[in-house]
Amino acid sequence: MRKATQQQTKEHNRKLVLQTLFEHERISRAEIARLTTLTRTTVSEIVADHIGEGLVREVGLGSSLGGKSPILLSLVADSRHVIGLDLAQDRFLGALVDLRGRIRRTEEQAVPPRGGDAVVSAVYELLDRLVRGAPTPVAGIGIGTPGLVDAQTGVVVNAVNLGWTRLPLRRLVEARYGVPVAVLNDSQAAAMGEYTFGGEHAARSSLVVINVRYGIGAGIILGGEIFHGDGGAAGEIGHVVVVREGGSPCRCGNLGCLETVASTHAIVERARVMVRHAKVAALPGAPERITFEAIERAFAAGDPLARQVVLEAGRFMGMAISSLVGTLNIRRIVLTGDVTRFGPPLLDTVMETLKQSVLARLLEGTRVEVGQLGPRAIVLGASATMLKDYSLLFRATNPRVASVT
Amino acid sequence: MRKATQQQTKEHNRKLVLQTLFEHERISRAEIARLTTLTRTTVSEIVADHIGEGLVREVGLGSSLGGKSPILLSLVADSRHVIGLDLAQDRFLGALVDLRGRIRRTEEQAVPPRGGDAVVSAVYELLDRLVRGAPTPVAGIGIGTPGLVDAQTGVVVNAVNLGWTRLPLRRLVEARYGVPVAVLNDSQAAAMGEYTFGGEHAARSSLVVINVRYGIGAGIILGGEIFHGDGGAAGEIGHVVVVREGGSPCRCGNLGCLETVASTHAIVERARVMVRHAKVAALPGAPERITFEAIERAFAAGDPLARQVVLEAGRFMGMAISSLVGTLNIRRIVLTGDVTRFGPPLLDTVMETLKQSVLARLLEGTRVEVGQLGPRAIVLGASATMLKDYSLLFRATNPRVASVT
Repeated sequence: MRKATQQQTKEHNRKLVLQTLFEHERISRAEIARLTTLTRTTVSEIVADHIGEGLVREVGLGSSLGGKSPILLSLVADSRHVIGLDLAQDRFLGALVDLRGRIRRTEEQAVPPRGGDAVVSAVYELLDRLVRGAPTPVAGIGIGTPGLVDAQTGVVVNAVNLGWTRLPLRRLVEARYGVPVAVLNDSQAAAMGEYTFGGEHAARSSLVVINVRYGIGAGIILGGEIFHGDGGAAGEIGHVVVVREGGSPCRCGNLGCLETVASTHAIVERARVMVRHAKVAALPGAPERITFEAIERAFAAGDPLARQVVLEAGRFMGMAISSLVGTLNIRRIVLTGDVTRFGPPLLDTVMETLKQSVLARLLEGTRVEVGQLGPRAIVLGASATMLKDYSLLFRATNPRVASVT
Repeated sequence: MRKATQQQTKEHNRKLVLQTLFEHERISRAEIARLTTLTRTTVSEIVADHIGEGLVREVGLGSSLGGKSPILLSLVADSRHVIGLDLAQDRFLGALVDLRGRIRRTEEQAVPPRGGDAVVSAVYELLDRLVRGAPTPVAGIGIGTPGLVDAQTGVVVNAVNLGWTRLPLRRLVEARYGVPVAVLNDSQAAAMGEYTFGGEHAARSSLVVINVRYGIGAGIILGGEIFHGDGGAAGEIGHVVVVREGGSPCRCGNLGCLETVASTHAIVERARVMVRHAKVAALPGAPERITFEAIERAFAAGDPLARQVVLEAGRFMGMAISSLVGTLNIRRIVLTGDVTRFGPPLLDTVMETLKQSVLARLLEGTRVEVGQLGPRAIVLGASATMLKDYSLLFRATNPRVASVT
């Protein structure tokens, strides 16, 4: 606990007013003063600054119960943009996002198979295109990446599939573009996306996102913030062992991790093994021809083998979620990633497993649902981390593009 | 975010000064002003109030680099007391604790087998004795109870072994004694005890306590506060299913919960089953004569059957902890409760299991240790929750004892 200095108070009040403008479509100075308990004079001074910076504008007159109609103010949604990246295993996705969280433009980028520096170059190529397309200053770049991330330093500690070890991604991107950068784990980004833009929630509430694609991770939001844990790796549930006897080897070196039985990769592997041993199956005959998309189609068509493989994975997801619910008693669990394509039957299996694995009283009010944002959760979440820092908006400038090749 | 009112500022400053006094054995007014950034005048006024209330006193002169030696102030440790209760399965423990967290007196109380109202009367009997023994005003009563607790309302939602369902324990005890009461789950209380008094830690850090006795629960401290979750039941890991195939029935209605394989009760049951089937064992021959204490003695004497049973339970504890570490990446894990009597061999088994079950990088810096407070963790933790609320100290009065029978 410390006394606030005058400078801190001023900065705090500037953010307070901007936050109130973010939370309302249109609002008068008097209403801002009422909600923030700041004086009318202070609010007017701050609003004048914001208007001067182009962040806010007057948009008309509101209704009045008597006396002069108040002038209404509104955030200028496209006065600044932020960029969000999703460095997915197979294909990078980037988005230019306005202050209201609307995606104004997306770009994709193939991921070079070699990994390492070539992958960094692919990130630059994607960013170059997005930066060139930005019509107003870019307040920041948020990057969601698979693997272990030190969010404080922006270093990717380890991302096996991208071939990165101790890569100072934030420093590299900040140096190249001259704007603030945040790097976070992709599951954490998905959680922030669903929390911020994925439907109604109480302010400062909690949420867990289970992101199941090639890898599996959880993003945990507690009291409105990403929970990182002591070492920055909270949510690494993909490598918690769930198969005690006879588990398969995992790329992490252990046996029987959740990823070995519930990831999209594991689902494909399991289907291949089963097709090799089964006599009847609607799945394409040759095991090596089975892809995730083939399983998706077979599942939709009611193929019993596809159904068995997918719902078995669902039971393992349910076990992992039951452990999360029993530990944290968080009531909103959101499933994101490719696996959500299996929809309600998968959710039913997860809920069934939860009922057998957690105290009934903990399940009261708990719901498991598919994310609202689909494949855009990560770019939107990565953007949201930049939008939350209002002080970035005051300082936003045009990124450097001179070095673009 | 809201602007602070003048009244809030005053209250805040009073607490700020008292906190600084809590954090230092002896300190001068000038040093308090420096640390809090409050003015000398404000500090002097507040300290005068605190001295008037008997909470603080002048204790001598400090050293000076020139000029007048400063007068040193110190908290009067026995100017107020708080009471902490541990409503253990078999025997209630109560303690009278001073402002420095020192236990000045303990009382025990047998638990009536009938449950329900008789158990409430036993709580009153214990409190009556502690209240009568309090030499100065009691600032509050903290109660750690097994079962599900709604910490906000102080209602024990369900405590099977005490025979309580929806018992408004806080309201009952507050009405009887006229002092503030907090009710919390016993594992949460143990966590708060170990966090507050169990050795060094960084301010506002995190900690998980796994409390293994007749039941199993976890107490999670995040950023210096007990984490409750959305429904108040965070840490209910005892009823997460860990045995998928052929699990034993649990008192909660599910099969294969952690409590069925790792609690003291489960250890005794398992030893009985094994003695029935084993030919050689140092444990007392008749299965029904096997108690937890007998297993403890046999384990200490190197009995292989006792060792097998206990370390098997340790492996299940390790699995539960691996799930916690993988989810939260909290680095300080503390084991408390009767099971800690098995000491280092049990800890080694837990660590061994962790190594096989969690990413190596998550284990970096993670340590599992036995709690520092032994069987006093819960009474001290329950007390600590009351000591943390400095405003209670300003208002502390003598509890009512008129109604004592």
